[in-house]
Amino acid sequence: MPAHSGLAELARRLHRLDHARAMLKWDEAVMMPAGGSEARAAALAELAVLSHETASRPEIPEWLEQARSTLAAAADADAAALERANLNEFERTWRETVVLPSDLVARSTLVTVRSEHAWRSLRPRNDWAGFRPHLEAVLAVKREEAAIRAEAGGLDPHDALIELYDPGTRSVMLDGVFGDLRSFLPDFIATVVERQRSEQVIPLEGPFPIRAQRELALEMMTHLGFDFDRGRLDVSHHPFCGGAPGDVRITTRYNEDDFARSFMAVLHETGHARYEQGRDPQGSGEPARRARGMGVHESQSLFVEMQVARSRPFLVFAAPIMRRHFGKAESTPGWGVDNLHRLYTRVHPGVIRVDADEATYPMHVIMRYELEKALLTGDLPVADLPLAWDEKMRAGLGLATGDDHRDGCMQDVHWAAGLFGYFPSYTLGALIAAQLMAALRREQPNLDEDIGRGEFGTIGTWLDRHIWSRGSQLSTMELLEAATGSALDVSFFCQHLERRYLRS
Amino acid sequence: MPAHSGLAELARRLHRLDHARAMLKWDEAVMMPAGGSEARAAALAELAVLSHETASRPEIPEWLEQARSTLAAAADADAAALERANLNEFERTWRETVVLPSDLVARSTLVTVRSEHAWRSLRPRNDWAGFRPHLEAVLAVKREEAAIRAEAGGLDPHDALIELYDPGTRSVMLDGVFGDLRSFLPDFIATVVERQRSEQVIPLEGPFPIRAQRELALEMMTHLGFDFDRGRLDVSHHPFCGGAPGDVRITTRYNEDDFARSFMAVLHETGHARYEQGRDPQGSGEPARRARGMGVHESQSLFVEMQVARSRPFLVFAAPIMRRHFGKAESTPGWGVDNLHRLYTRVHPGVIRVDADEATYPMHVIMRYELEKALLTGDLPVADLPLAWDEKMRAGLGLATGDDHRDGCMQDVHWAAGLFGYFPSYTLGALIAAQLMAALRREQPNLDEDIGRGEFGTIGTWLDRHIWSRGSQLSTMELLEAATGSALDVSFFCQHLERRYLRS
Repeated sequence: MPAHSGLAELARRLHRLDHARAMLKWDEAVMMPAGGSEARAAALAELAVLSHETASRPEIPEWLEQARSTLAAAADADAAALERANLNEFERTWRETVVLPSDLVARSTLVTVRSEHAWRSLRPRNDWAGFRPHLEAVLAVKREEAAIRAEAGGLDPHDALIELYDPGTRSVMLDGVFGDLRSFLPDFIATVVERQRSEQVIPLEGPFPIRAQRELALEMMTHLGFDFDRGRLDVSHHPFCGGAPGDVRITTRYNEDDFARSFMAVLHETGHARYEQGRDPQGSGEPARRARGMGVHESQSLFVEMQVARSRPFLVFAAPIMRRHFGKAESTPGWGVDNLHRLYTRVHPGVIRVDADEATYPMHVIMRYELEKALLTGDLPVADLPLAWDEKMRAGLGLATGDDHRDGCMQDVHWAAGLFGYFPSYTLGALIAAQLMAALRREQPNLDEDIGRGEFGTIGTWLDRHIWSRGSQLSTMELLEAATGSALDVSFFCQHLERRYLRS
Repeated sequence: MPAHSGLAELARRLHRLDHARAMLKWDEAVMMPAGGSEARAAALAELAVLSHETASRPEIPEWLEQARSTLAAAADADAAALERANLNEFERTWRETVVLPSDLVARSTLVTVRSEHAWRSLRPRNDWAGFRPHLEAVLAVKREEAAIRAEAGGLDPHDALIELYDPGTRSVMLDGVFGDLRSFLPDFIATVVERQRSEQVIPLEGPFPIRAQRELALEMMTHLGFDFDRGRLDVSHHPFCGGAPGDVRITTRYNEDDFARSFMAVLHETGHARYEQGRDPQGSGEPARRARGMGVHESQSLFVEMQVARSRPFLVFAAPIMRRHFGKAESTPGWGVDNLHRLYTRVHPGVIRVDADEATYPMHVIMRYELEKALLTGDLPVADLPLAWDEKMRAGLGLATGDDHRDGCMQDVHWAAGLFGYFPSYTLGALIAAQLMAALRREQPNLDEDIGRGEFGTIGTWLDRHIWSRGSQLSTMELLEAATGSALDVSFFCQHLERRYLRS
């Protein structure tokens, strides 16, 4: 941010504090012994306070104004565009930071930390009565926060929270998109389920040694362009992508009886990782080099996992490698490409979101989106959530959850942790991934042949040009339109599903 | 630090920033991919700046004064003693922090970082001519620093640097102690070398699988009381003990042909680790709960490695465990207790400090102490260092280094990294360890029987009472006197050597 040295210094400090926090969180999930948790929580809280102090320095509004005047007089248009994006992003996060009174931040942190902690022990016990007061307390502070943010930003309260994860995304747009999906998916799912009923699918027989699973994962990451000089693969309870652009840490979890889950998780996280490795290759830490938002991030992971890795051409390439790592032959029952492809494209409505296939997944997101909206407006009291959940689940996927709160409304950590407004990003990501793939295919009609040969260079170059290298310089929708030539359009996703599940 | 809420808050912040820095440094040495180094260095520098800002807040002198008045009026004597120690330690580090002008800190950091970096590539190439200007630049800023610190603290310049690692330790005392060692060691070493010449020693034959080495290390750490709920064992290029009291991270490095090096390194680091796990078990972060200094820290590692682990009784206990991990029998040549004890108590003058046995090690330290004193006064120009080194090495251990700078005056990172004043701690630690062991033996005449049965509880309890739990509440010499009933006395170390090497 050359336009103002004071802002540049603050941005640099924030970037470096982010590095420290990201690495400490990775360590907490991957390395830390149990007894270290209290000291770690204290250290992370301190860094959060330091970031907050830095991001809310009283000089910022004046500095922003000075920087904008300097910029107005700048000659170099390209540099000015990047710099304008830097200032916009800096200002956006500054506004997000200072708008909340510090007593609300403190209360909110306390309530959500307690609630998430309680959820970890109450969910396995199916203890809705124990969890309900926590969720009520979280909802209360989140409604307070949403009202303040909505007022300041001239937004609907739900949108004011969605904005934190996906800047620029609005309910009015999501209502349209989700409406289209609601009209398409239920019949589609029913058709596919019926069609797949007659398919012969041979389950793969383990055990699959963890060492072999890890070797397979590392080999695939290498093919997909993961840069091991600037990243690692480790193990944690839940797979995630963390770290910093020059040092991206992804994780997975191995199960000796089922390698596919870990394998697909690694491919998914590799999608996130390449975005992280590509968005700020010089490690400048400039605000406009940050990832655009959760929707775009999820589009990158789903691009690899859903658009590429579950495709038939990918399995043509990957199957021999998989067999080699597990000592199987092409003739071993189940290990041929046809069966593998059937295995990895099963559509099966279930009650658990994280286990859902790409066709049923949006139904899980849409019902959460509707429920959290009703919770935030107050139309749905927390006490009625289990019933409302069960109804939505029956209506959307034909499944009852009843009193199984563990796998019903207590299944996700998001609300327990205060992440209202986060869920839409998952489906936004799936739609963007499909639209990006359609655009890339128009430019590269032979893409499937490349994929079948394990040549992913074209994909990386294209995503880098259109997504990674652009950071936060455009809004999500501008980014999508610049990359694909059209506004967000559900039909690309629907066409992808039809081609994969009805025509293959 | 209940005597002043402002100071308490600063101390807490500093403690938490220390946690973050320690973990990021551990990660850098153990986990980080090469490409992450630039971003990591920047993040660590930022945290150092934040710590410096916190530790030099202008309100501190006033707050210290207020706290001292509050304390003078306090009724509870024990609490007041702890609190006084907290204030003393806070004030000491505050004075150390604010005494240097910030431009000197910046220049010094730049010069030492560059020099250490250069040393890493120049040492393997034996490139003294390339390294010399770096060392000159480091020495120049260190002399500047020493002069300022000396002036402020009323100390000799060398002492002002030693004070940073071992508060309260002075050259006048070291001169006496090192003089005693100089009179004792050369003849002693010659006698032992002569005596060992006729010993039959059977080298152990590998390979020693790394997995077995790690299992052996973990089992030994458990016997020695390492708390795995609050710590880990990993691998790094150089063994070290890092992390924070609730989460102590030690490392080692495995070599398939030689397990003993890694084994002894783990035992050594376990000594450091137990001090870290014991000094602040509640994780209060109070200044008086910090480790006392490098000399006391080294005494804890050498207590385990030298006083305990290389003793015959320990090997009586450990030999069957070692054999079990490597699938050897008592009758396998070399694997009996007698031979193992001979192997781990060889005295052999060599040019490399880190490879030295406990008898020759002090000679390495003393020559460095004398050389760095001459470098700091200016009596020895850097250009003459290789010659002076060679002379000292001949005089002390009868070995020539000549033009082999790599294994001569370029062998250690310390001076390259600006750590003038650090070396004496190593030998101070060895002396303290011997003196502590002598005191413990007076109280526990049957200690060897406990050690022979693998019962280390007595040792842990005693060290906790006299060293770990006392943190920085006393000075090094007060701590030693309180634990052993006498001032620092070289004779305990000499008697230990005589008993082990001449009478066993």
